Amino acid sequence: MSDIPAWARPSGRPADQLRELKLEPGFARHAEGSCLIRMGVTEVLCTASVEGRVPPFLRGKGQGWVTAEYGMLPRATHTRGDREAARGKQSGRTQEIQRLIGRSLRAVTDLKAMGELSVVLDCDVLTADGGTRCAAITGAWVALHLAFQHCIRSNIMSANPLRDQVAAISCGIHQGTPVLDLDYAEDSSAHTDGNFVMTGSGGIVEIQATAEGAPFSEAELTGLLGLARKGTAELFAAQRAAVGA
Amino acid sequence: MSDIPAWARPSGRPADQLRELKLEPGFARHAEGSCLIRMGVTEVLCTASVEGRVPPFLRGKGQGWVTAEYGMLPRATHTRGDREAARGKQSGRTQEIQRLIGRSLRAVTDLKAMGELSVVLDCDVLTADGGTRCAAITGAWVALHLAFQHCIRSNIMSANPLRDQVAAISCGIHQGTPVLDLDYAEDSSAHTDGNFVMTGSGGIVEIQATAEGAPFSEAELTGLLGLARKGTAELFAAQRAAVGA
Amino acid sequence: MSDIPAWARPSGRPADQLRELKLEPGFARHAEGSCLIRMGVTEVLCTASVEGRVPPFLRGKGQGWVTAEYGMLPRATHTRGDREAARGKQSGRTQEIQRLIGRSLRAVTDLKAMGELSVVLDCDVLTADGGTRCAAITGAWVALHLAFQHCIRSNIMSANPLRDQVAAISCGIHQGTPVLDLDYAEDSSAHTDGNFVMTGSGGIVEIQATAEGAPFSEAELTGLLGLARKGTAELFAAQRAAVGA
Amino acid sequence: MSDIPAWARPSGRPADQLRELKLEPGFARHAEGSCLIRMGVTEVLCTASVEGRVPPFLRGKGQGWVTAEYGMLPRATHTRGDREAARGKQSGRTQEIQRLIGRSLRAVTDLKAMGELSVVLDCDVLTADGGTRCAAITGAWVALHLAFQHCIRSNIMSANPLRDQVAAISCGIHQGTPVLDLDYAEDSSAHTDGNFVMTGSGGIVEIQATAEGAPFSEAELTGLLGLARKGTAELFAAQRAAVGA
Amino acid sequence: MSDIPAWARPSGRPADQLRELKLEPGFARHAEGSCLIRMGVTEVLCTASVEGRVPPFLRGKGQGWVTAEYGMLPRATHTRGDREAARGKQSGRTQEIQRLIGRSLRAVTDLKAMGELSVVLDCDVLTADGGTRCAAITGAWVALHLAFQHCIRSNIMSANPLRDQVAAISCGIHQGTPVLDLDYAEDSSAHTDGNFVMTGSGGIVEIQATAEGAPFSEAELTGLLGLARKGTAELFAAQRAAVGA
Amino acid sequence: MSDIPAWARPSGRPADQLRELKLEPGFARHAEGSCLIRMGVTEVLCTASVEGRVPPFLRGKGQGWVTAEYGMLPRATHTRGDREAARGKQSGRTQEIQRLIGRSLRAVTDLKAMGELSVVLDCDVLTADGGTRCAAITGAWVALHLAFQHCIRSNIMSANPLRDQVAAISCGIHQGTPVLDLDYAEDSSAHTDGNFVMTGSGGIVEIQATAEGAPFSEAELTGLLGLARKGTAELFAAQRAAVGA
Repeated sequence: MSDIPAWARPSGRPADQLRELKLEPGFARHAEGSCLIRMGVTEVLCTASVEGRVPPFLRGKGQGWVTAEYGMLPRATHTRGDREAARGKQSGRTQEIQRLIGRSLRAVTDLKAMGELSVVLDCDVLTADGGTRCAAITGAWVALHLAFQHCIRSNIMSANPLRDQVAAISCGIHQGTPVLDLDYAEDSSAHTDGNFVMTGSGGIVEIQATAEGAPFSEAELTGLLGLARKGTAELFAAQRAAVGA
Repeated sequence: MSDIPAWARPSGRPADQLRELKLEPGFARHAEGSCLIRMGVTEVLCTASVEGRVPPFLRGKGQGWVTAEYGMLPRATHTRGDREAARGKQSGRTQEIQRLIGRSLRAVTDLKAMGELSVVLDCDVLTADGGTRCAAITGAWVALHLAFQHCIRSNIMSANPLRDQVAAISCGIHQGTPVLDLDYAEDSSAHTDGNFVMTGSGGIVEIQATAEGAPFSEAELTGLLGLARKGTAELFAAQRAAVGA
Repeated sequence: MSDIPAWARPSGRPADQLRELKLEPGFARHAEGSCLIRMGVTEVLCTASVEGRVPPFLRGKGQGWVTAEYGMLPRATHTRGDREAARGKQSGRTQEIQRLIGRSLRAVTDLKAMGELSVVLDCDVLTADGGTRCAAITGAWVALHLAFQHCIRSNIMSANPLRDQVAAISCGIHQGTPVLDLDYAEDSSAHTDGNFVMTGSGGIVEIQATAEGAPFSEAELTGLLGLARKGTAELFAAQRAAVGA
Repeated sequence: MSDIPAWARPSGRPADQLRELKLEPGFARHAEGSCLIRMGVTEVLCTASVEGRVPPFLRGKGQGWVTAEYGMLPRATHTRGDREAARGKQSGRTQEIQRLIGRSLRAVTDLKAMGELSVVLDCDVLTADGGTRCAAITGAWVALHLAFQHCIRSNIMSANPLRDQVAAISCGIHQGTPVLDLDYAEDSSAHTDGNFVMTGSGGIVEIQATAEGAPFSEAELTGLLGLARKGTAELFAAQRAAVGA
Repeated sequence: MSDIPAWARPSGRPADQLRELKLEPGFARHAEGSCLIRMGVTEVLCTASVEGRVPPFLRGKGQGWVTAEYGMLPRATHTRGDREAARGKQSGRTQEIQRLIGRSLRAVTDLKAMGELSVVLDCDVLTADGGTRCAAITGAWVALHLAFQHCIRSNIMSANPLRDQVAAISCGIHQGTPVLDLDYAEDSSAHTDGNFVMTGSGGIVEIQATAEGAPFSEAELTGLLGLARKGTAELFAAQRAAVGA
Repeated sequence: MSDIPAWARPSGRPADQLRELKLEPGFARHAEGSCLIRMGVTEVLCTASVEGRVPPFLRGKGQGWVTAEYGMLPRATHTRGDREAARGKQSGRTQEIQRLIGRSLRAVTDLKAMGELSVVLDCDVLTADGGTRCAAITGAWVALHLAFQHCIRSNIMSANPLRDQVAAISCGIHQGTPVLDLDYAEDSSAHTDGNFVMTGSGGIVEIQATAEGAPFSEAELTGLLGLARKGTAELFAAQRAAVGA
């Protein structure tokens, strides 16, 4: 796919190229697991906190739970946004994203193998330049893996309950061409935008694809899915390197 | 597709059969446009309210806006849920759904043709049995169409700003088979569940597909999309009948 | 009283005539008891939900509890009102009304005969045209009666804890004349407005009478009370028909 | 009526006797008008604050507005209650009471004569022993009168916009006998409890009468009304003395 | 220090003179301990409520807790402020003050000698003219002492857990001169303002000193501390008189 | 002072030694000014956002405003804390800290020289190990200085409105000895704890000193102040290096 002209994208990247990717495992000093993920300018700090209890609806059922919270520092963005704590409520967008992160990680976790423990994944955006929810999922998997390893070292668990890897990437249709890993400028000008959450073994966990302007076709969807498969393959390799697997 | 054995589904329906569908345009006495939509037991009252102002970010730009709110009566469900007004906030699920409804209707509306008016679509679930967000989108289109007709009769608009129809249907993988229009029992047991928002002219506005258990494959996604296309074709016919088009 | 000239009221009804009344028991598919009540254009859906617990202040006291919540769909009214769930709090008016409904139903319920169960009465206004709180009380009695019958059929109760009927009606002074069952137009122009909650055996459970402009006299109060007695007699008959008593 | 045996009431008062009444006009140092009212142990501080604006729905209509807020110090009661500011919302009871106080005072105020000014009546209960809402209305009238006098002295108004006096008293049925001005112990044991808001010229502004146990009869209502008339006559005299009229 | 010219202060007081001080123990009828403190025009009602439980973090540790809440009546001030209960949250200032009051009283209480009881100190400002947080601390000590005496009389405690007295006073730099006990006018014009919380035995519990304009020097701090020592000595004497010690 | 035995402190540092200090100016990509400050393990990201408006109370007065917000990532601490945005309100501690930061920076800013602009300082704690509010003040000064330089380069301002430097450090009494710059372990065991905000020219902007157990003496306060002076001298040098002054 690399013969697509680079000038088609604001970023100048070939259509199928990820932004520069960097994972820093163990960034947070106190968390059982953590990872700072950078995708280009986008920067998300993911921490995994192990707690010795489960939500009320799971008590006594002998299984665990994985959930996520998402936030953005007020000046992560080009112009300062309101602090959600000061406004007194989380936006619909925030809630939508943290529900997506939690579902994605649960999809690859053997909750029964966790025992009655919870892990809370906090994904906080330090700098935003598009793709923060996807970066959060990819980084959260590393943090979760490290937290489970910590539980094994502490003799709380005997094996890592993660059954597979999970990572996410955004793709979109930019000037009629499917392109991989949209930055903020590209996201704003793309007429279709999708987030693809995939597993290491090639399955699809979640697809959210939205036409911003004109509707899209099934052929375009297939094109986006192919790019996502290529992009997540690179993310999976980086995750494995980060957790030393 | 009707040779798929009916016993495969809790509802006993063939895999590609919609539930019984009924649209009652004009149900609400005071609204500029309204539609009570019933899909099997699921029942959603959609009203469209025309307001002579736009949100602050659009003031003076000579265009309109369409937005949606979604709610569920506390006893729409099998066991009573909390009243969101009493709890003091809308759940993440509620916000996610009302954002989806708003996006879907805006995708087929020529906002510039509206002038500086807003339409608020209120979608309130009287009885829930699966597929409420899809029913809301399908019914809201009828309410919106009627409200625009009302504006034309009142000489506020000269032509209907709706460029196309939009409708939505859920599909899922039930025991390995893609099935159309999940009811609550089917939704609970399906291992993959998707909502497909499509236009009358065959485009895709939004896809949200989620694996509840094992990930799904691209082939399964294609199967779901085919069913959605068949299902929305029937919804479009019912919408046209309801608005007298 | 039927010699009062019909032209005195915006609705054209004789002073002592109720609006057209219709009770649809069992309207809600999932609730233990329900009733859709229509009084003219006003339309309120009342559901009764049985819950196997009582509020903290009653725990271990061997008695039950009946409480109510009230809401209005945003476009139940002539112009759209804010959704209370979106605003994040219930108005003073909403709270005042739901407290009144709860008190009225408890006044005719033998709470000790319920055992440690609660019933929540949800009264949601689908269309508002005056008198919604009175309609809610009248309809809620039917829903509650049906829910208790459901408990008897399920062997949770041996007898119906309702000791009497309760119903409510508004009356007001319109152009110097007491009139029965005000619709919205009449309510807006009446200078005194009262809600009368009465029992099947002729007792008064609650009176709320308010002068909107000039104060009213004891004689006027007596006139309103006489009308309320006539109106509730008709409501009691309709309730009995609805529950098959 | 004074031949009713005193032993019938917990307080030992004759059925038609008010508690000891004391009005201290000008208690608050900064308010335009204020009154500390004591009825027995019940003690309510009422202040009237004049503000140079009206609520949005009245802007440009050339009339004023009178509104009220009600609060209770956490330890005004026998056992400490939650502080509403700490809980983050006002209870339904609080809202119901402050709406009643506002309506009652507006009923005797010529809003058009006020110009585009508002008066906020703050009624804060320092000690509660029954009858706080009635005491608040009676005391608020004094505070409002003094605030209007202050406006006249400051040349903001030329005449006092109060057209009449307004005062309120509670009455109830205690062991079958109508009694005047219930204290907390009596209120708890009365089977019917009513609040009567009346004008100096003998009209009724508002009646709220509620059966706590068995319903009450029209004859009992008439008895309560008679007592209320006697009680408010004494309150009117005390108000006139307090404002020097 | 009394040779500092009286004309230096808006109040005309010598630099080291307190405002007129009055403590009324037992002002609140229902509280276990209470004190109305007046310092000039400033007036704060302090009540101490004994509760038979401790916060969750102390359960089962065999010790007690003392905490405080602070509020201001809306018209305690020159112009009316919002009611915090109506606004739905306490301001940062309110929270800061109530945390200070709680810390100050805990500093002189032997929490282990209390048993598993809590005391809530409610400090409500009836009239504000500067120095309300200091007055609240001084008055709360009296209320707390009386509440503990009540516990001794009720055989809940055998000795008073208060180990020392605590009182507070504000001092500031007014036109270059350190002055004691600022009233509102002085507080507004002082360029440095400090609150000093001290114990009967001469120790310092808390100092909060803030430069409003130019920074202050260590020498100025020493001057303020000397005045605070003199002022609190007078407050301690008044406290002892109020509790009969 | 360096002859104080190092074993006296949990950290092993001499009594008058700061933790390792690192300032990274320009850390945040989008903000007009920013600084990541590390003091030992404590890590706070400070950003300065310039906004072209002032709060309502300053409109039209020809001056600017500087304000601050403070937050802590949920897993900045040893055990995860609630996310304030999810809880729906900021704690009293958070509000107290952000008010302190704002006051401290305003104390060295010539607000009139800013024009009608605001700067919001966001101080977000990435890792907490004691002294976060002091680190925030020190880092915020750098961010503010850089933001003003940005305004000069953009021709919005002609000179930097900062009149002086401001920095803050905590000191405490540990086992009877005054020590500088407490980390979390030391803060927990210190019996007195103070925060000292000082200016580059030697003035005191704010002192907050609190006895956690026994009260402290004036001599101890003097000792703490001396340490603070030494510590802030080092902070001022680091600030100047960070802004290239």
